Amino acid sequence: MSRLADVSDTKRLLDHLYDPVVEELRQVEEVLRRELRSQYPFVDELARHSFHLGGKRLRPALVLLAAKACGAVKPDHLVLAAVMEMIHTATLVHDDVLDQASLRRHLATVNARWGNETSVLLGDYLFTHSFYLASTLETTFACQTIGRATNTVCEGELRQIESRGDYSLTEEDYLSIIEAKTAELCACCCRLGAHYAGASPEVEEALTEFGHCLGIAFQIVDDLLDVQGDEVTTGKSLGTDLEQRKPTLPLIRLLSQVDEKQRAVIVAALDSQTPLPAGALEDWFAGSDCMEYSREQARLYIERAKTQLAGLPVSAARSVLERVADFSVERRH
Amino acid sequence: MSRLADVSDTKRLLDHLYDPVVEELRQVEEVLRRELRSQYPFVDELARHSFHLGGKRLRPALVLLAAKACGAVKPDHLVLAAVMEMIHTATLVHDDVLDQASLRRHLATVNARWGNETSVLLGDYLFTHSFYLASTLETTFACQTIGRATNTVCEGELRQIESRGDYSLTEEDYLSIIEAKTAELCACCCRLGAHYAGASPEVEEALTEFGHCLGIAFQIVDDLLDVQGDEVTTGKSLGTDLEQRKPTLPLIRLLSQVDEKQRAVIVAALDSQTPLPAGALEDWFAGSDCMEYSREQARLYIERAKTQLAGLPVSAARSVLERVADFSVERRH
Repeated sequence: MSRLADVSDTKRLLDHLYDPVVEELRQVEEVLRRELRSQYPFVDELARHSFHLGGKRLRPALVLLAAKACGAVKPDHLVLAAVMEMIHTATLVHDDVLDQASLRRHLATVNARWGNETSVLLGDYLFTHSFYLASTLETTFACQTIGRATNTVCEGELRQIESRGDYSLTEEDYLSIIEAKTAELCACCCRLGAHYAGASPEVEEALTEFGHCLGIAFQIVDDLLDVQGDEVTTGKSLGTDLEQRKPTLPLIRLLSQVDEKQRAVIVAALDSQTPLPAGALEDWFAGSDCMEYSREQARLYIERAKTQLAGLPVSAARSVLERVADFSVERRH
Repeated sequence: MSRLADVSDTKRLLDHLYDPVVEELRQVEEVLRRELRSQYPFVDELARHSFHLGGKRLRPALVLLAAKACGAVKPDHLVLAAVMEMIHTATLVHDDVLDQASLRRHLATVNARWGNETSVLLGDYLFTHSFYLASTLETTFACQTIGRATNTVCEGELRQIESRGDYSLTEEDYLSIIEAKTAELCACCCRLGAHYAGASPEVEEALTEFGHCLGIAFQIVDDLLDVQGDEVTTGKSLGTDLEQRKPTLPLIRLLSQVDEKQRAVIVAALDSQTPLPAGALEDWFAGSDCMEYSREQARLYIERAKTQLAGLPVSAARSVLERVADFSVERRH
């Protein structure tokens, strides 16, 4: 994930895109501010801190844009958008709980300031609060949809942990993992937006599939950007995924194109040490089509995503969903 | 917590007590076995492993006994009992995610075998699965009740982290923390048992208060046993709470009875190092009434708990609830 990249540019661009739901997003921020409070000062400090962790607000925007593309944003949508952002934040906080081995690397805020135990509990606090908030709606639909989706996300994250150092992972395995760990939550946002706007089952499915494809493309680009690294800000050329021995699409593509001997050299470099020695793999990546190939795969998913919107009436929200899709694949950080 | 104490004796005693719901508990085990599975081998291994972590099955038993004391155990109760056990297991798994500083101490299974990241994700997997399972019932009542209770638990756990090394913590503060982190979930089990058995609002409240008082007493005794230590099995005399600088009732009582100078000596010993030097504090505890006082406080809560059962018809389940209450305060490990 390109979490260490500069998100503020991305955020600025997205803010511009979110225009048709800007007022509703402001109301979601209000819900989040109201909910992320506690009468106990320490819990309150943590809850307020977590309010600022998400940043891009992509998930609330998807709920609201899907709703608006199907009809209108209703009060339930504001609650659900806040729920999805809280869940996303919980996963970010838990992502930052580190194993000893990787403690020196990407030190993240909650973890760095308050330690592992507090990070785990803050994530749990956000998870349980979001489930409670979802249960304040009239039916169990949101709880069921969100419960199933978040469970799939955890399953995907566990499968990704298992895949570390497994350089025999296929493109199909990789896609199946990112479908679970990333696409599922985006799909869930779009489904909730459509469902609570009273969309027909067909439209609800189409928007769910839109979110699913968007999520896959988004993660492929995240992984691609991670391997490309961020030379301007870090002066380094390879990202954290390779150092964590996480096989993502560019590496899987590279390994599929080299012979056994070359493969052994690359795997040895990956397994050698953390951090990777500078220059150990750059030439391999530069000499292959793996970056273009990965972005092309993401583009194919974005095309499939946009096709799903064909049945919706023309609207500002629908256009923005298309532009969010295009943006997610063309972005450079 | 006396997690390191020998739970098998406790379990044996409780198993005997659970007699009136033994068949239903077996069905709950079946639900757990069925639910804690995954098509992905690594996730499946973890899920199956977590099935064995809970052990005492106190929470499912509370759901079932409360149900039976109010009428009959229904299919929803089996689901809810499994949900509550899964949530309890999730909190156990997350309890075991350690800060670097305490890594050498109580090494716990998931954490020791699979590391912090996997433990966090397995806990999340169990949390989200339990919420999903609760949402399969007809109304949002279970989701709301469970969502609120688990959120309160997290808040209580965070407050306890904050209280570490705070030797000015009062008995009232301590009770307020254990009400949140322990009593809330026991209360929730009893409420769900009563509610889904069709109990009147008054009976539901009485059983909720029963669970609340039972949970407080249970935690006081847990904390008391931790300070007493387990000389037979560990050969050591003071428990982990003091080493983690966690002020629990015996210490709070002790500190309230000494003068400023004595207090300074005790606090210095507590702050000095981990592990505590042998014999540093034993005499202080032995010379005060703090152990008897703590158990007496627990007894008062148990009396209050049992009073709540007065309005229920005489039944085997009601008797067992009384005996579980008595057992929880008289147990020696």
